[in-house]
Amino acid sequence: MSVHMRAVWYEGAGGVEVIKLRDVPRPVPGPHEVRVRVHCAGLNRADLLQRRGLYPAPPGWPSQIPGLEFSGVIDAVGAAAMHWRIGDRVMGLVGGGAQAESLVIREDELMPVPPLLSDAEAAAIPEAFLTAWDALKHRARLEPGQRVLVHAAGSGVGTAAVQLAKAMHLTVAGTSRTASKLDRLVALGLDEPINTSNGSFRNHLEEPVHAVIDSLGGPAFADNLAVLHPRGRLVMIGHLQGSRTEADLGLILRQRLEVIGTTMRARSPAERSSLVRGFIEEMLPSFSLPGRPGDPQLVPVVDEVIPMEEIARAHQRMESNDTFGKIVLTW
Amino acid sequence: MSVHMRAVWYEGAGGVEVIKLRDVPRPVPGPHEVRVRVHCAGLNRADLLQRRGLYPAPPGWPSQIPGLEFSGVIDAVGAAAMHWRIGDRVMGLVGGGAQAESLVIREDELMPVPPLLSDAEAAAIPEAFLTAWDALKHRARLEPGQRVLVHAAGSGVGTAAVQLAKAMHLTVAGTSRTASKLDRLVALGLDEPINTSNGSFRNHLEEPVHAVIDSLGGPAFADNLAVLHPRGRLVMIGHLQGSRTEADLGLILRQRLEVIGTTMRARSPAERSSLVRGFIEEMLPSFSLPGRPGDPQLVPVVDEVIPMEEIARAHQRMESNDTFGKIVLTW
Repeated sequence: MSVHMRAVWYEGAGGVEVIKLRDVPRPVPGPHEVRVRVHCAGLNRADLLQRRGLYPAPPGWPSQIPGLEFSGVIDAVGAAAMHWRIGDRVMGLVGGGAQAESLVIREDELMPVPPLLSDAEAAAIPEAFLTAWDALKHRARLEPGQRVLVHAAGSGVGTAAVQLAKAMHLTVAGTSRTASKLDRLVALGLDEPINTSNGSFRNHLEEPVHAVIDSLGGPAFADNLAVLHPRGRLVMIGHLQGSRTEADLGLILRQRLEVIGTTMRARSPAERSSLVRGFIEEMLPSFSLPGRPGDPQLVPVVDEVIPMEEIARAHQRMESNDTFGKIVLTW
Repeated sequence: MSVHMRAVWYEGAGGVEVIKLRDVPRPVPGPHEVRVRVHCAGLNRADLLQRRGLYPAPPGWPSQIPGLEFSGVIDAVGAAAMHWRIGDRVMGLVGGGAQAESLVIREDELMPVPPLLSDAEAAAIPEAFLTAWDALKHRARLEPGQRVLVHAAGSGVGTAAVQLAKAMHLTVAGTSRTASKLDRLVALGLDEPINTSNGSFRNHLEEPVHAVIDSLGGPAFADNLAVLHPRGRLVMIGHLQGSRTEADLGLILRQRLEVIGTTMRARSPAERSSLVRGFIEEMLPSFSLPGRPGDPQLVPVVDEVIPMEEIARAHQRMESNDTFGKIVLTW
């Protein structure tokens, strides 16, 4: 195998014109790592922010090769790695560098691709489903029978959160500005579709919620606090509409609310590995058809599979806000 | 005993002119309750807010008799109450009605008065120490060796938080606008005194903190977020300076921070009782002299003991911001 590989490369910060494909050295796995031949890589809002220079890679990750998630096949195994073999189909989460032909990753952060899923479907799972599952289970600490509101429910993480909420026996409300996306979300299990093209969600909720999974940020902050039950949790997973806010914090005190920020990218290897192990055990079987009647069925929602050579178009499509689910890049 | 008692009575909402002393029916304990002959009652900011009509009593508590904490002696025991006897010295927390000659309370919410403490000292414990302990231990979830910042450290809850932080083996920074209060706080164990008479605490902290115990509110919000470690907790226990804020929530997301609101008054009996039991076990022995060398020593800090007949002066003294520790009212 060549000592070089192709990779997406951000040449500076700016619009899609800074996105290049370059030949770079192919990484070599350390003792506890494996190397993955990447077949597909999910595209995330974080990649667009990083392109604009607003979200640098954390220390220890490639600074100019974007990409936070991937699917592929193991093609090299470190001397001390014990759990995987060459040829295993895997998927996973990294702090950067997934939009390349190869990457190396600690073996305990990998997940097997569920049987019957395509490479593109697998690459649509890690960021969306791990973020949503961690938010619902570990940050919001939701219990069966409780109510949750998911913003931008037609996004990758939104479509994952709606499905996971149903698998966790929650009642789930979700917002979108597009009626057709809400129709598709209802088919995925959404209980209360809320069209926000004509204003805030605040007056459309049937009753308060125990948690909000928020990707909007500052402009929605006050309304998010207002729709929570006493002791409710506002889990912030993104700031699509910006992070500035003017708000009254009185409700946080009087209602004993919690505001919890969370991202995947800044996590330590130990924390990521622990999350991945929990997800493999509790949720991964639900991606495999056919389940028993009544079992939850999880489906990675792929908006479009786009060749890596057309990555500029992929960025433009994500910026259009017309997507439903994930954009997946493929070599 | 007379079927009537004297009680502080808010006749409407407004300045100290609405505060009256009235004869009202003396309460009778239910089966699982005891009646306490109140000797002393702490005064709290919440009482001043309630007087101004801004903080109504929660459902189930006297709406016009203020008072959230007390010390006294049991003088009647409900038919099914088993843990206390007439004559026992007790102290505790209620949702209202403590500034009266008698009150009734569920027996599992009471604490014994630690040996050697006066009635006035005992009445200075419940609200300040339970709030601070719950904030440090259960909300901020601090571990030995971590750093905490306590705002308004010269207040009742502030002086309690500084002492409890040291008992929990934390490093504690504290703010005050008064140099002499900071000197007295250092004597109570404060590690980093920060004088905020000339501006924000933000640039005076030696290093970031794992938690902030905040009683200031909106104006301090942005700086509170800025001084936290990644994954740090901002615990809101009051909004002395108001609750409006303009802020950038970006740090909450990127640093994975938590903002946690907490109050004692809105809690359910079960929650209050559980907190009280934990406090009795872990912290109450530390109020009793002499401890073994190295044991934490907790001291309720009493600013002034004021006769109930002079309650208007007590309100005015609290509003002056000249107090250090608790104002205690006595019959």
